[in-house]
Amino acid sequence: MIAHDTTTGADADPRVAQLVHALGADVVQSGAAVAPYCRDWHGDVQGGAVAVLRPRDTAGVQACVRAAVALDLAIVPQGGNTGLVLGAIPDAPGAQVVLSLDRMTRIRDLDPDNFSAVVEAGVVLQSLRDAAAAQGLAFPLSLGAQGSCRIGGNVSTNAGGVNVLRHGMTRELVLGLEVVLPDGQVFDGLSKLRKDNRGIDLKQLFIGAEGTLGIITAVSVKLLPAPDRVATALVALPRLEDAIGLYRRARRECCDLMSAFEFMPPLAFTLAREAMPDLALPMDPTHPAYALIEIAGSGLVDIDDLMTRFLEGAFQDGLALDGVIAQSQAQAASLWAVREGMNMGQAQRGRHFRSDVSVPLSRLARFVAEAEAAITAQLSGVVCVSYGHVGDGNVHLNVLPDQALGPKGVDAQILAAKKILNTVLDRYEGSISAEHGIGRLKREDFEARLPGTQRALLTAIKGALDPGRVMNPGCQLTLSGAER
Amino acid sequence: MIAHDTTTGADADPRVAQLVHALGADVVQSGAAVAPYCRDWHGDVQGGAVAVLRPRDTAGVQACVRAAVALDLAIVPQGGNTGLVLGAIPDAPGAQVVLSLDRMTRIRDLDPDNFSAVVEAGVVLQSLRDAAAAQGLAFPLSLGAQGSCRIGGNVSTNAGGVNVLRHGMTRELVLGLEVVLPDGQVFDGLSKLRKDNRGIDLKQLFIGAEGTLGIITAVSVKLLPAPDRVATALVALPRLEDAIGLYRRARRECCDLMSAFEFMPPLAFTLAREAMPDLALPMDPTHPAYALIEIAGSGLVDIDDLMTRFLEGAFQDGLALDGVIAQSQAQAASLWAVREGMNMGQAQRGRHFRSDVSVPLSRLARFVAEAEAAITAQLSGVVCVSYGHVGDGNVHLNVLPDQALGPKGVDAQILAAKKILNTVLDRYEGSISAEHGIGRLKREDFEARLPGTQRALLTAIKGALDPGRVMNPGCQLTLSGAER
Repeated sequence: MIAHDTTTGADADPRVAQLVHALGADVVQSGAAVAPYCRDWHGDVQGGAVAVLRPRDTAGVQACVRAAVALDLAIVPQGGNTGLVLGAIPDAPGAQVVLSLDRMTRIRDLDPDNFSAVVEAGVVLQSLRDAAAAQGLAFPLSLGAQGSCRIGGNVSTNAGGVNVLRHGMTRELVLGLEVVLPDGQVFDGLSKLRKDNRGIDLKQLFIGAEGTLGIITAVSVKLLPAPDRVATALVALPRLEDAIGLYRRARRECCDLMSAFEFMPPLAFTLAREAMPDLALPMDPTHPAYALIEIAGSGLVDIDDLMTRFLEGAFQDGLALDGVIAQSQAQAASLWAVREGMNMGQAQRGRHFRSDVSVPLSRLARFVAEAEAAITAQLSGVVCVSYGHVGDGNVHLNVLPDQALGPKGVDAQILAAKKILNTVLDRYEGSISAEHGIGRLKREDFEARLPGTQRALLTAIKGALDPGRVMNPGCQLTLSGAER
Repeated sequence: MIAHDTTTGADADPRVAQLVHALGADVVQSGAAVAPYCRDWHGDVQGGAVAVLRPRDTAGVQACVRAAVALDLAIVPQGGNTGLVLGAIPDAPGAQVVLSLDRMTRIRDLDPDNFSAVVEAGVVLQSLRDAAAAQGLAFPLSLGAQGSCRIGGNVSTNAGGVNVLRHGMTRELVLGLEVVLPDGQVFDGLSKLRKDNRGIDLKQLFIGAEGTLGIITAVSVKLLPAPDRVATALVALPRLEDAIGLYRRARRECCDLMSAFEFMPPLAFTLAREAMPDLALPMDPTHPAYALIEIAGSGLVDIDDLMTRFLEGAFQDGLALDGVIAQSQAQAASLWAVREGMNMGQAQRGRHFRSDVSVPLSRLARFVAEAEAAITAQLSGVVCVSYGHVGDGNVHLNVLPDQALGPKGVDAQILAAKKILNTVLDRYEGSISAEHGIGRLKREDFEARLPGTQRALLTAIKGALDPGRVMNPGCQLTLSGAER
C-alpha cells in the first residue's frame, strides 16, 4: 500500500498563495483541509497534495486547470472519492493538486419526454436517482456507494454495479459529456440525442479514463421508466455450476427483465450473522450455492407471477433445491441484507484480499473452483469467499487470511493470494478489473499484462491529448520519461 | 455527386505488378475487376482505384497494409459496400487501393453458454444472424442491407437499424475487436468478456471511425436468447405528436420489451401501392399518422396478450384511432411491407433527397412539422415523406422533387432541400447523421458544424494513430496539409 507524508508544509508553500491569488480563497483549500481529499475510501492509504481546488462551475474548472499548469502542478480530478483502486488519490504530494467536483451539484435539465437528464459532475448518484424518481423515471446505475459517489466519478471510472446485467455499465447510460481538457479548453459534447452517429465518438475516450485525459464537468444521461414492481428471490442450488444454467434459463424465460442475478456461497450467511447477529436466516444456510435474483418491470407485465412461474419450472426440473420469494419490500431488503452483511462480516474478520475479476460466463464456475483450490492449497488457514454477478461473469473472489499470523503474515497472504488468483485468471483469459478500474492500485498488474500494441496506442493517445502530462499522472499507466 | 474516371490504366500501372509480387495474384484484383468495388450502393457514384486487395486472413491484411504503405498508396477498407455515405468508395483513383474484407468470412467461435460469437469482418450480417438462430440465439442488429452488409462494415460505421430502440447501436453489441493498424501491427482485443473495465477502452475508437484509424478484421459480439414470439401492430393516430405519447406509454406498459416503434405518414400507403400494386391495405390509409409497433420476447411472458392489452388501453384513452394486430407471421410481414414499399415507391418516383437526422425525442413532431413546412414553402411542387424510429428521435425526412423540372431542376431542389432541412435541424440541436455515418457524402456538412475543440481532438487522434494518413483519407475529415 502507498503511504505518503501528509505534512507537506502546504501553507508555507508559495504556490498555495499563488493559487489563491489566481482562483480566490474560496476555491483553494490547504493545510489540514487537504488530508480528507487524499485518503481513500477504505482508509488504507493517505496521500498528500499542495492544495485542493473546489471550483463551482465549468469556467471555474478551466481557471483551475490554467492556474495549475502555470505553476507546473499536475491535477488529480476527484468526485465522491469512493473509488476502490486509488484513481483519485494523489501520489506526488509536492507536485499535485486535487481538483474536486464536489461543489458542482446542479441538475441542469431533466426532460421526461426525452427520457434524459443533464447533470453536473458533482451530483451524488443517489440525488440523480431521486430526481429521476420524482418524475416517474429511473437512472439505473446502482452500487454500494451511491449515497456518496458522484456521477462524474461514475463516468470517469465507467462504474458497474448490480444492474449491469440489464442496463449495462455506466458507458451505456451516457448520451453526452462536457469535459475540460488539459489545455483548459472545453469539449462541449452534452448532447441529448438518443442516436447520433457522426463518426468517431470522442466522448468514449473519457469514459473509463479515470481523469487521465481531461476533467468531466457535466454528463447527459439516459433515463428509463421507473419499475413499479420488483420481485426478489433467494434460491439454493446443488452446485455453483447450476447458477449458470439457471441464469441462461432465466434470460430466456424472463425475457431479459432480470435486473440482478448474483451468486453467493453458504459462508455468506455465517459472515452476515457475524456482522448482523439479529439477521433472520431466510432459509437453510448449508446448501452448496445460492443465487439472489431480481426481476423488475412496470405496467402490464405481472412481475410477481413471472418470478413464481419461473421458479416453479426451475424446481420441477431439479435446477433449484430451495427458494424464497420476498412477499414485501421489507422481505426483499432482508434478502439483500445477506449479501451486504457478508461484506461487513468479511471486514470484521480483519484485513483481507478483495478482488474484482471477470471470466467468460461459460467458465465462471470452473474458474472459481480452480482458483479457490489453488489458493487454499498454497496458503494455510485462509478462507475464500467468492460471490459476484453471474450474468456478467464478474467474480469477487476474496480471501480472508489467517489472522493468527499477525500483520506481516496477513500482508504476505494477501499478496500471495493476488498472485495465485491472477495466475489462474490469466489461463482463463480473464480481466483483472471487471468493474472497479485500474487507478494506481492495479496499475502494475495491468501493465504487466498489457500487450505492446495496446501500450503504444494508449501512450500515443495520452501524448496527443495531454502532452504536458497534466491529468492524473501515475493513474492507469506509468509514463515513460520525466514523470511528475 | 462525385464522378471519377474509371479508366486509370491500372494494368499498365507498375504498382499493380509490385502488389502482385508482394501479395500474390490471388489477392490483387485489377483492371475491370476494380470497378464494382468502387461503385456505391445506390449506383450514384463510380470511383476508381489502383487495385482491389482481397486478403484471406488477418496476416494477409497485415501484408496488404505493408505492401500499400511501401508503394505510398492509401487504403480504403471495404466490407459489403452497402454504406449510404460513400465511406468505402475511393476518391483518389491513382493513389488508393480498396482493401476488401469479403473473403474473411469465418465464424471463429460461437459460445452459446457465454452468449457470444467471434466472427471475421467479412461475415455477412444475415449469416451471423442465421448462425446464432441455429443455437436458439439472436444477433439483434437488423437493417435493410443485412443480406449483403458485412459485420466489419457494421462495426466500422456503428450501424443502426430498426432494433436500436431495444438493443442499441452496433457499438453496444461489440465485446471485442481485432484491428490491423496503419503500421501493419495487430491490435488484439477480441475479448469474450461481458464486463471488462481496464481503463481507456481502445476498441471504442475504431467503432464508427469508418476505417480511418485501422482495419477491423474480426469482431466479438454479444448474442441474446432468440425471441420465440413477436407481436406486430399497425396503429392509426390523430397526430404525429401522439406517436411520442404512445411511445412513452408503451415503454412503461410493455416493460421495455418493444423491439421497434416506427412512424409513417399516410403517404406511405400510396407509395407502397405504387411499388406493389397487389399490396392489400391493412386499414384506412387516410389517417394523419401511423405507428408500426413490435414487441418481442421469449419464455413465460405472453407477448400477444401484452400487445392486445396495451392497445386496448391506448384506444380507451383516445391515443389511437384504429389498429390492427398481425395474426400470423405472414400478416406481420405485410405490415412491414407497407414500410418497405414506401421506400421502393420513393425510388420509383425518381431521384430524390434522403436524410437521416435525429432530434431530441421530445421535439420530434415539432421538428418534422417545421422542417416540412419550410421545405414546401420554399420549393414548389415537392412532396415530403417523413418516417423513422420514434424511440431514437431518428427521422428520415425525404423530399421528392418536382420531376417536371428536369434533371437540373431536380438536382437543385435536392440540394436546396438539404440546406433548408439542415437549417431547421441546427435550431433543434439535431444530428446530421443519426445512423448512417459521415463518409465522404456528409463530410462537408459535418465539418461545417464541427466545433474547433472537437476538430483539434479528432486531428490529434488521427495524427497519433495514423501519422502517415494511410487509412481512408478523405473520409470523415478533410486532412490539413498534404492530402493524398
